[in-house]
Amino acid sequence: MHNTVKIAIIGYGNVGRGVVKALKRNPDMELVCILSRSPARVKNEPGVTVPVFAEDNLNELKKADVAILCSGSKDDLPVQGPFYAKHINTIDSYDNHSNALPYFKAMDEVAGKAGTVSCVSIGWDPGTFSLQRVLSNALIPGSKIYGFHGIGPDGGISMGHSDAIRRIAGVQDARQYTHAIPGAIESVRSGENPELKSGDMHWRECFVVVKEGADTGAIEREIKNMSGYFAPYKTVVHFVSQEELDAKYSGFHHDGLVIGSGTTGEGNLALIEYRNIWDSNPEATANIMVAHARAAKRLANENRRGAFTIFDIPPAYLSLHSREELISKFL
Amino acid sequence: MHNTVKIAIIGYGNVGRGVVKALKRNPDMELVCILSRSPARVKNEPGVTVPVFAEDNLNELKKADVAILCSGSKDDLPVQGPFYAKHINTIDSYDNHSNALPYFKAMDEVAGKAGTVSCVSIGWDPGTFSLQRVLSNALIPGSKIYGFHGIGPDGGISMGHSDAIRRIAGVQDARQYTHAIPGAIESVRSGENPELKSGDMHWRECFVVVKEGADTGAIEREIKNMSGYFAPYKTVVHFVSQEELDAKYSGFHHDGLVIGSGTTGEGNLALIEYRNIWDSNPEATANIMVAHARAAKRLANENRRGAFTIFDIPPAYLSLHSREELISKFL
Repeated sequence: MHNTVKIAIIGYGNVGRGVVKALKRNPDMELVCILSRSPARVKNEPGVTVPVFAEDNLNELKKADVAILCSGSKDDLPVQGPFYAKHINTIDSYDNHSNALPYFKAMDEVAGKAGTVSCVSIGWDPGTFSLQRVLSNALIPGSKIYGFHGIGPDGGISMGHSDAIRRIAGVQDARQYTHAIPGAIESVRSGENPELKSGDMHWRECFVVVKEGADTGAIEREIKNMSGYFAPYKTVVHFVSQEELDAKYSGFHHDGLVIGSGTTGEGNLALIEYRNIWDSNPEATANIMVAHARAAKRLANENRRGAFTIFDIPPAYLSLHSREELISKFL
Repeated sequence: MHNTVKIAIIGYGNVGRGVVKALKRNPDMELVCILSRSPARVKNEPGVTVPVFAEDNLNELKKADVAILCSGSKDDLPVQGPFYAKHINTIDSYDNHSNALPYFKAMDEVAGKAGTVSCVSIGWDPGTFSLQRVLSNALIPGSKIYGFHGIGPDGGISMGHSDAIRRIAGVQDARQYTHAIPGAIESVRSGENPELKSGDMHWRECFVVVKEGADTGAIEREIKNMSGYFAPYKTVVHFVSQEELDAKYSGFHHDGLVIGSGTTGEGNLALIEYRNIWDSNPEATANIMVAHARAAKRLANENRRGAFTIFDIPPAYLSLHSREELISKFL
């Protein structure tokens, strides 16, 4: 039989709910508890069948092998990541690309000292898309690598960007849809290897609900100038009512495409495309984090310690299957 | 500066020539020698600027860190792989899927005893496509995984299958083109998750030049009944002259597509597509093997030993870049 991986969920929003569902699809996984800022609320949520504790209940937390951190990257993870990595193996989906290296280093230092394993920035972008970028670069040296999100007509929701807007004073709720610019994809697929800046490839559409009396002008400026998240893009902000947001913009569809374009030999075309389509973006992130929880336990069992990105983990460690099964079924 | 990886090439056909070109694109790589069954011929090939030795010249071979085995899977690698793994770290592209596990075990035993690292079945299929199959299975548990090759109208050349035909008595030369069956791809993309057998997804087209006096009927039967390679497929065999083969069928274009299709949560669509387009199939294989030579040296430096598939290697090991560069540029 498989070694059971005992999981704790920290933070119970959309990703946390996705983790509960993902764990049920992995027969070697067992959810042992949820830690939340609002345990009383979470206890009453439908589908919650495990004990729920306050966020500082380390004694209960330590009954798990791995904690899956399901909170936001902007304000929560920079504090929670290093806090929990002192006590337990962690998985997080820290998604601010421009701060990823300092976050990795902070987590590596804490986990290295504590003797725990922390898998950071685990999701699909950063995450599986990052992996494809590294592979394209290594397998087609000199290739140019492009990433697109929100290729369908409705674009795709970005949880990180939605969360970033929600943290602004005066904002009650928000959803951010990323849209790829179709002409940019075409020029890449043609092998032209165009020079494209972030703003040539995507634009961002924000649907924002404000609290009574909030200064919408100031909020719009704060969104558009938010460094890393919105500043480099054409950004359109719509202020809508909570009713309209819930009715029209409640889905979590997202999709994306990585293209590595280059040549082999003396100019033979070489193109690698990686496309993901997810009806539920938070469930996709949850699924990917759950597979990495399996890897984290295995790394910890080997007495590895410190922070790991998706680049550092043998892909077999993500799988339930034995080496023989992997070779027989998948090689 | 980077640690130089010293490379020996064993077997100098299309893949071997591709390795020479691929090494030039990797600034940390240095070709030190070529071992060939016909060293006199290879010495005179254009572009060969390193010493060429006979295949049994182990003293010269051992000046390299890693030997890249560029010979065929059907007859050569089962003998050469275990022979060379006793003496040096190896990379091969053993591509007979149905015999991959016994080959892995044979290599693992030899390399484990010898204290060398052998990366086996390294290419794009098996290889990067296998990796995508494992990832789809781990990240979308319960997903169905489909693989297609030769999606364009001309299909794609399979070196393994061409090589297998060339080994038949009476065959002078051959090219095998694999064709995907378009209706099968459509039904997979629609999310129907159809049940497809090998023969529902592809057919195989062979262009064969025979030696004078050869029995074409017997050759055609031997091709069509070749277990693993042709038996499960609709196979069309054309007998052509060497002139026609060279004029019309000398390119090495190939392409392929892996699709993992499933759901997350309570039925939300989840689709992962991985597509490769290569104008030169042997150069693609060469490029992927060269990146794995870097990984093999690094694994050997860590005193790892035995056989490794692409599943067992942290993707960062394939890259020239440091951990900090990978996080900053690609995460």
